[in-house]
Amino acid sequence: MDNAVGTNEKVGFNSWCPLLIFDSMQKLKELAQKIRKIGKDDPRRVLHSLKVGLALTLVSIFYYVNPLFHGLGTSTMWAVFTVVVVMEYTVGGTLSKGLNRAFATLLAGALGLGAHHLAALAGDKGEPILLGMFVFMLGKAAAMATFSRFMPEIKARYDYGVTIFILTFSLVAVSSYRVEELIKLAYQRLSTVAIGVTTCLCTSMFVFPIWAGEDLHMLVAANLDKLACFLEEGMGVEYFGEKMESGSLEGKSFLQSYKTVLNSKATEDSLANFARWEPGHGRFGFRHPWNQYLKIGAITRHCACSIDALNAYISTLQQSHKSSQTTTDLEFKQKVQVACANMSKETGKALAELASSIREMKWSSIAGKHLAIATETACRVKALVPAENSTLLEVLISATTVSLLTEVVRCTNPVIAAVEELSRLAEFKRPEHGRKAGTVKPIADIESLPHAVIVIEK
Amino acid sequence: MDNAVGTNEKVGFNSWCPLLIFDSMQKLKELAQKIRKIGKDDPRRVLHSLKVGLALTLVSIFYYVNPLFHGLGTSTMWAVFTVVVVMEYTVGGTLSKGLNRAFATLLAGALGLGAHHLAALAGDKGEPILLGMFVFMLGKAAAMATFSRFMPEIKARYDYGVTIFILTFSLVAVSSYRVEELIKLAYQRLSTVAIGVTTCLCTSMFVFPIWAGEDLHMLVAANLDKLACFLEEGMGVEYFGEKMESGSLEGKSFLQSYKTVLNSKATEDSLANFARWEPGHGRFGFRHPWNQYLKIGAITRHCACSIDALNAYISTLQQSHKSSQTTTDLEFKQKVQVACANMSKETGKALAELASSIREMKWSSIAGKHLAIATETACRVKALVPAENSTLLEVLISATTVSLLTEVVRCTNPVIAAVEELSRLAEFKRPEHGRKAGTVKPIADIESLPHAVIVIEK
Repeated sequence: MDNAVGTNEKVGFNSWCPLLIFDSMQKLKELAQKIRKIGKDDPRRVLHSLKVGLALTLVSIFYYVNPLFHGLGTSTMWAVFTVVVVMEYTVGGTLSKGLNRAFATLLAGALGLGAHHLAALAGDKGEPILLGMFVFMLGKAAAMATFSRFMPEIKARYDYGVTIFILTFSLVAVSSYRVEELIKLAYQRLSTVAIGVTTCLCTSMFVFPIWAGEDLHMLVAANLDKLACFLEEGMGVEYFGEKMESGSLEGKSFLQSYKTVLNSKATEDSLANFARWEPGHGRFGFRHPWNQYLKIGAITRHCACSIDALNAYISTLQQSHKSSQTTTDLEFKQKVQVACANMSKETGKALAELASSIREMKWSSIAGKHLAIATETACRVKALVPAENSTLLEVLISATTVSLLTEVVRCTNPVIAAVEELSRLAEFKRPEHGRKAGTVKPIADIESLPHAVIVIEK
Repeated sequence: MDNAVGTNEKVGFNSWCPLLIFDSMQKLKELAQKIRKIGKDDPRRVLHSLKVGLALTLVSIFYYVNPLFHGLGTSTMWAVFTVVVVMEYTVGGTLSKGLNRAFATLLAGALGLGAHHLAALAGDKGEPILLGMFVFMLGKAAAMATFSRFMPEIKARYDYGVTIFILTFSLVAVSSYRVEELIKLAYQRLSTVAIGVTTCLCTSMFVFPIWAGEDLHMLVAANLDKLACFLEEGMGVEYFGEKMESGSLEGKSFLQSYKTVLNSKATEDSLANFARWEPGHGRFGFRHPWNQYLKIGAITRHCACSIDALNAYISTLQQSHKSSQTTTDLEFKQKVQVACANMSKETGKALAELASSIREMKWSSIAGKHLAIATETACRVKALVPAENSTLLEVLISATTVSLLTEVVRCTNPVIAAVEELSRLAEFKRPEHGRKAGTVKPIADIESLPHAVIVIEK
């Protein structure tokens, strides 16, 4: 019996075990692929990871071989600590954190020492009273320093320094060491922090440096390229080109990459902030106009917004075209189509030219020429419209405004649907007459309006 | 003579000194006003600053009065350290950092201790060799941990934990203490970190708590309100209302506040990330659907993009209207105007209704009804257009597409200007035939096209 049960169990285990192994193998495989993808997308990430390892190993080796280091006692860990905390992906990030850390430690240490010196001067009776006062002052100082972080200028550049300042000042002010001990401690702390910061800076600046400034430079150019790609390939070739209406633009992921431009502000801001800390490197001088990149970025996002409105409009148009074909005046349609293709292509070329002009740091007037052609074409389209009377012009203006407004109305629909979903998920209160009244119903009538179709997104 | 010189100097000083005092008084005044504004904009910032001070004071008082604390020796500073580093503006932020810190310290400490135990087992000869190996393994471990931060899921939720893990593991692995000493150290470190984290959590959760979840809830509703305000007040009342064309919308700052919605993604993401760490509070359960807020946010931004396109179009229109008035068919124009005003107002009301529905956590079907009216109006506008033949319909569609495309062309112009400015500031290379060829020239022709005016922004 026992044997039989054992066999059964073994059989059960055998049929279950390969599945488990297979499952975990599968998961490991997926993880490996994910890791490889991250490394492949930007090989500098692997380099950065190795650099952090290198910096830590260097500091640790220092610790084992350097007699100076042994003299610093348990403060050594501050060197390791500094490396772990200060080492950032870009040179600018490391510089910003390292310098913030070094100066904040210096300043807070000096202030803390001064406070202790004052307490010592007060004599044996005054000292505990003064120290007690310090603890309360400490709270106030920390509160003030914390408040200063809400100022945008301080937040952007000195946030880390303020943290370290509060930290060091608290440590020194609270400690019950005597002044002579404190001075020794301060000397040790400063030397170890200096060693840590120096190791970090050397590793990050001299071993395959990753410059925030260069990243910003490339990002701004890449964003312009994404817009250019949508206008040239997507609009110029796919939509207005010969293959017009053959397929939807929605499905083509390379055409939709312009949408990432809309959310690029945070990345650009942080890169520009780090870039300001960097010394001159390669093609970039010390006082390189990083702010101008932010300006270009903001205008590029505005452009991306316009392109998004256009994309939303034509994809609505495509969907309504499927149901009702209204091709009566083929010649007129073709003329407009050619003009639109021309406008898209030339604007795309202008943007691509600007991107390459930034990338190669070489100004060329070709972009202006491309845009001039696009502008001219826009003017010529006007002549195509059979404008017998000025009423038609009026109609044209109204048509655009109404279309845009209809687009706004259209994109409010999914907002209602999303809030409705939230109200279900988060169990909002509902009016007495039940749920049915609240659901969004698609309105059929509007389908007949070619330039204003309300589509409820699933 | 001496006296005279002295008087002269005194006069010089007197006339220069008040200026200096006045100047610094002025600057102090400005700073004070700035600080007051920051505090007034969100009084919780002042509260947060006071709370950080309170937490630090609490930990310091512990240090002075608690005999347990004295037993922990110099490790005490880790409690202060933890408070300074872990205390965040929102409860979710503090929880996320505190738990990350606590668990990372525990895990890395245990691993480090294990490594040391292994080294001790190897005996006197093997120990230095093993410790040497650790230093190199440490580098690799740190590199791997650093690399893991590039995975978005880890970056969002466990970034701080990974830092603390590298840190603690490095400290334990590198230290030359014996195992018994290390165990004592680990116990001290863990207790002090626990005291620090507990102080932070109590202060942040029980003294005027600031919940990230509630902030996200309110932010999403406020963003919807900003769009509603632009549509209702700006478009419905100011632009399409009775005062039409009386003034530009550009100057009214409260109408332009919808533009901040376009850049709200980073804030929403970080709030949602913190909100997931928070326990149930007030109206929000533990598993509140925070992801749904991100979805609503994304759709709201899409809506804001549409509104931005509309705003850009009508402000272009307003500028061109100043030069050429084309009011021939007043009746038609007024009908369209009334319809547009209706569409704007109803859409705005729908959005405002959704915002208040979120704010009060109470679903109402009124938003859907408002939008249905707007959609119906959009359908009715079609009937207004004198569509004798289907060619006109064709013209209408083309008109919108051309207008939108012209808008894209228009907003590419400032990009060229900005890149040109960069090329001057950063001293890009220029082609041989000089700078003149590269400047952007405004094209006069296009002015005559009422719905497509190229304006070079200054």
